[in-house]
Amino acid sequence: MSTSFPTAARTAAVARALAGVLGMLEWREELRHEPGTCDLVLGNPQEMPLPGFVSALRHHSQPLNKDWFAYKRSEPEAREVVATSLREWRGLPFEPADIALTPGAFGALATAFRALLDPGDEVVYSLPPWFLYEPMLLAADAVPVKVRVRPADSDLDVEAIRSAIGPRTRAVIVNTPNNPTGRIYPPETLEALAAVLTDASARWGRPIWLISDEPYSRLVFSNAEFHSPSEFYPYTVISYSYGKVLLTPGERVGWLAISPEIPGREQLREAIEVAQIASGWLFPNAVLQYAVGDLEALSIDLVDLEAKRDRVVAELTDAGYHLRSPEGTFYLWVRSPEADDRAFCNRLAERKVLVLPGTICEVPGYFRVSLTAGNEMIDRALPVFRSAAAETTSAVG
Amino acid sequence: MSTSFPTAARTAAVARALAGVLGMLEWREELRHEPGTCDLVLGNPQEMPLPGFVSALRHHSQPLNKDWFAYKRSEPEAREVVATSLREWRGLPFEPADIALTPGAFGALATAFRALLDPGDEVVYSLPPWFLYEPMLLAADAVPVKVRVRPADSDLDVEAIRSAIGPRTRAVIVNTPNNPTGRIYPPETLEALAAVLTDASARWGRPIWLISDEPYSRLVFSNAEFHSPSEFYPYTVISYSYGKVLLTPGERVGWLAISPEIPGREQLREAIEVAQIASGWLFPNAVLQYAVGDLEALSIDLVDLEAKRDRVVAELTDAGYHLRSPEGTFYLWVRSPEADDRAFCNRLAERKVLVLPGTICEVPGYFRVSLTAGNEMIDRALPVFRSAAAETTSAVG
Repeated sequence: MSTSFPTAARTAAVARALAGVLGMLEWREELRHEPGTCDLVLGNPQEMPLPGFVSALRHHSQPLNKDWFAYKRSEPEAREVVATSLREWRGLPFEPADIALTPGAFGALATAFRALLDPGDEVVYSLPPWFLYEPMLLAADAVPVKVRVRPADSDLDVEAIRSAIGPRTRAVIVNTPNNPTGRIYPPETLEALAAVLTDASARWGRPIWLISDEPYSRLVFSNAEFHSPSEFYPYTVISYSYGKVLLTPGERVGWLAISPEIPGREQLREAIEVAQIASGWLFPNAVLQYAVGDLEALSIDLVDLEAKRDRVVAELTDAGYHLRSPEGTFYLWVRSPEADDRAFCNRLAERKVLVLPGTICEVPGYFRVSLTAGNEMIDRALPVFRSAAAETTSAVG
Repeated sequence: MSTSFPTAARTAAVARALAGVLGMLEWREELRHEPGTCDLVLGNPQEMPLPGFVSALRHHSQPLNKDWFAYKRSEPEAREVVATSLREWRGLPFEPADIALTPGAFGALATAFRALLDPGDEVVYSLPPWFLYEPMLLAADAVPVKVRVRPADSDLDVEAIRSAIGPRTRAVIVNTPNNPTGRIYPPETLEALAAVLTDASARWGRPIWLISDEPYSRLVFSNAEFHSPSEFYPYTVISYSYGKVLLTPGERVGWLAISPEIPGREQLREAIEVAQIASGWLFPNAVLQYAVGDLEALSIDLVDLEAKRDRVVAELTDAGYHLRSPEGTFYLWVRSPEADDRAFCNRLAERKVLVLPGTICEVPGYFRVSLTAGNEMIDRALPVFRSAAAETTSAVG
């Protein structure tokens, strides 16, 4: 942006951090409508929505009283549904007032950043990350501090996190099951992280927040077990979206949950609601709040997703790719046969297979494959992956 | 908030600015469910929703393709609908790309503040204001600068605005038709304001933005004519919500429009989309974007609203209240017979009539009446207004 035009300088900085993502979205939009294209770029639906989702929307659009479409903050019934579900699922005594209903995990994270962070506060997270942490943190005037996960197994590098924490660190973001790696962090790792955060909190004289971003926590494969960081460390808030497990990211509903282990958390509840109101009324629409009870019981077909994972991991491995079979999410994180992941992704795109270059997640030399595609699309994509790898190997060799 | 607990200091400041509003909402919530209560506090529905609204939601919840509930930014069809409507309505050549779809005017304002304001920038607006400008501006790190409207006729005090503008002024907010006064600012006033802004922009070396907050622009009575500030001053963005004209504030949809008169506005379009993404994906849900074409054609019954206005203004005036008949909105702005508007509102509340104390809008000595009530509720409220005024007058006299 030119400096003469008076839009905000802060937003110009956010725009620079977003430029790669926006360029990628444009690239995808240009290519994906070509007949025969395999669009494996985003966690977007590739098949018709779940009938149960549609009937929940239609059902709850029918008003039962005059307040039906009145202003909604976090509706008591929706809070109760989520708290009840979390008590059983996470084994912590969540109360309804610990649950803030939000427009998806985007809204939950924006709320958490606003409630917890002051300008100049540092927030530590691991690369490869969800590609919007940085612009969202910059928009909240926070300072992103990045470490790498361990390349061998994509587990958190707890020592690197320890080294990155300093007096300005206000929060650490952990995303598990992880987008883009598909890794679920094991209990030992989360325990070690909790010890680091407890130590650092004591050293710097105030609790460091753990923002546990868990939109994929229901997309867990049968050989894996999900553990939330909230089991190990008290000062945790959890963000969640129904948009992943239902593949409906265009209807924004999720929540931000406050760990019941946080001492004096009433104040945090208040700060969260204040942040939601003042940041643009970050509450889900009325219909989606009424629907939360129905949505809790719905999911895409995880057996089918797991079969796709197994098939694609096996085929890509057989074709010479290096990747770890993910424990959750619908993503594969694959080493690019060419160091230049963008160049390799462009070669796949020439053959109508679209994937996400690792550069977008600040880790060049990899690409991410989304398995939200149907089996027929995957059938078409696999031979392209195979031939592209073979050519690269022969060209390099 | 105590300083020992590590929620954000910025949000604590926002919480202080919001405390009066949150207290008022709690007060209303405690009292409004008492049988026989007349709830005239907020712009909330008091009768069943418009059938056309319900059928639009239900119709567009039925997916027609696999992308139906995929991620949505500003959908091209919705942008086209709004741009076409605005071209005719406002007489300016809006293009679809000038329209950002937002979750209501809240989302539009949050987006505008983020796109246009840097930390420390001053924003001038007039009292009595919409009671959430201040917390939203503080959340965006901006500095509210307040002037009063002219008490005699609630018109903008353009000279006061001129005096309030200085080197740090980045924007002026104008809300017309005005909440809470019901005033529509006349063309002469908007022309004078434009001259002031043009002068000040030249003096301080950069354009001062005009944020024209127009959610009530379709709630205009038959003896009045609405003029948008965008007709008079180029550097204008317009915020709008369908939640007022449809009385459905729980389903968030509206827009932020960029005046086509702004030179080089492509950069502003980009800044707005960046702000929407990074502030928590401030786009309306898919269903509401599909519904925009239907919503444009719907409205609450303005003939009935105008009859209510005429009746209540006449009755209150006859009972000894001082008020100006509003030209738009569904609000009346009434001089409190007691200087202490909270005390007077509490006396009304004891008799089950709830209104908004002017103190909440930073102008003590007034109260706001919302006419979204049905006629039967108004029948019950009018004698209470009459007796409360009579008692106050005799007590004071």
